[in-house]
Amino acid sequence: MKDLINNNLQETMDLIPNSIVKEAMAYSLLGDGKRLRSQLLLSLLKDFEVDVTKGLPFASSLEMIHTYSLVHDDLPAMDDDDYRRHRLTNHKVYGEGMAILAGDALLTYSFQNCLQSSLSDGIVLTCIEILSRNAGIYGMILGQELDIDNQMKTLDDLIVSYEHKTGKLFAAAFEMAVVIAGKKDKQELASTLGHKLGVLFQVQDDLLEYTKSFEEIGKDVKSDVLEEKVTVVTLLGLDEAINYKEKLVQSFYDDLELLGGTGNTVKNLIDEIVKRNY
Amino acid sequence: MKDLINNNLQETMDLIPNSIVKEAMAYSLLGDGKRLRSQLLLSLLKDFEVDVTKGLPFASSLEMIHTYSLVHDDLPAMDDDDYRRHRLTNHKVYGEGMAILAGDALLTYSFQNCLQSSLSDGIVLTCIEILSRNAGIYGMILGQELDIDNQMKTLDDLIVSYEHKTGKLFAAAFEMAVVIAGKKDKQELASTLGHKLGVLFQVQDDLLEYTKSFEEIGKDVKSDVLEEKVTVVTLLGLDEAINYKEKLVQSFYDDLELLGGTGNTVKNLIDEIVKRNY
Repeated sequence: MKDLINNNLQETMDLIPNSIVKEAMAYSLLGDGKRLRSQLLLSLLKDFEVDVTKGLPFASSLEMIHTYSLVHDDLPAMDDDDYRRHRLTNHKVYGEGMAILAGDALLTYSFQNCLQSSLSDGIVLTCIEILSRNAGIYGMILGQELDIDNQMKTLDDLIVSYEHKTGKLFAAAFEMAVVIAGKKDKQELASTLGHKLGVLFQVQDDLLEYTKSFEEIGKDVKSDVLEEKVTVVTLLGLDEAINYKEKLVQSFYDDLELLGGTGNTVKNLIDEIVKRNY
Repeated sequence: MKDLINNNLQETMDLIPNSIVKEAMAYSLLGDGKRLRSQLLLSLLKDFEVDVTKGLPFASSLEMIHTYSLVHDDLPAMDDDDYRRHRLTNHKVYGEGMAILAGDALLTYSFQNCLQSSLSDGIVLTCIEILSRNAGIYGMILGQELDIDNQMKTLDDLIVSYEHKTGKLFAAAFEMAVVIAGKKDKQELASTLGHKLGVLFQVQDDLLEYTKSFEEIGKDVKSDVLEEKVTVVTLLGLDEAINYKEKLVQSFYDDLELLGGTGNTVKNLIDEIVKRNY
């Protein structure tokens, strides 16, 4: 499934005439990503026994949006990261101006690319609505603001930021899948599933970060972590955070069953997320 | 017509829940702009005797795309401007990170906003195709790259950069107008008109810049201008540049006649552009 997505991304980029911005787009888009968002979309289609290639253009568009957000997020004015996935970040290779343009170009192209779909105009338009709503000021971008602002104090604040920052693009994947599968009545449930998975993904991140700091530094780093950054672990403590994660997993699987379909392909992917240690 | 657009932009922004990014979006979007691109779209509709309100959502989306490009263009990594239209630029007020997000949010919202249209799914999709193609890597963004690169040596190089940097959003305005007016067979001509107007607009800029430098410094600045930046004036000389502009105006009006409609409203707007001295 990952190969299918990577091939489609490559073919899509091949359509664009050569330019430096194109090179910068390809550098980040065609790198070695987990392709989680696009795989979620195709996996849910598979569990609904719908031809997964119907979802391909939208899956690629999701990856373009995710990639643009990483390129902009790595900029000095944002997180100021020099490396991502063991490679230099976009602006370290192409310069800041070009990285801003490459991100803008990926975001713009994600919408143009939806037009590659041969599904009905109504379905394509609904998918564009889903993508733009979840990626923009109602979705991921609001999550970025909460992140920059760093005003999270309570668990509720943190959950809202996780739902937006990560959950919204997962929600887009699930929402588009149910729309393509002709189950528009399940769109709200699909969105809820995306939010839950976003929180689950970030809680797993918090747990990994805590464990990793503990292992690397070889002492209890709880106090340092507390000073630096509010996470589910700093707010709940390690045991309660693990409990919280288990409950989220159960609640996600309950909702997945309500959504219908076999659920098997999505479950396998979720298991990977839940058990990942990288 | 400008009031119609400004009201629509205000109403559209009012839909969004409050946040800092929203404030930053509104700061740049609702400022005092010429609204040239959106007015071109509505003017052409009027000359085709089509209800101009049919074009409003797309006119507003065009302004959002234009505004995002200015916000990102003003960033320190790009043109590094502190002021625009006598106000502080977005990043001087909200910080660079927030300005990047506000630009991203405007771009994303420009597509979401197209869904406000009550025209047929087919027309809305075609307009989204037109917007994304002209704004992205095939259009305005390629123009930005040529600008950053600054490798323009010949008149042909310069024209290509003007066609992309400015012409492509004008092309989007004209293309969307003919599609909304049910004249899809004129789309290519509409695009050509947009390119010509983009070049005309930039040539006028070059002439104004030359005249202004001359007046302000009180001497012939031709040599300084030559060193600093390649423009139509530095390449052709003042007299030939004026000639070039006159020919462009004529060629634009010839094409406008081929496009059909009365042409009056568009002509009035073009006259403003051609005669502007600011």
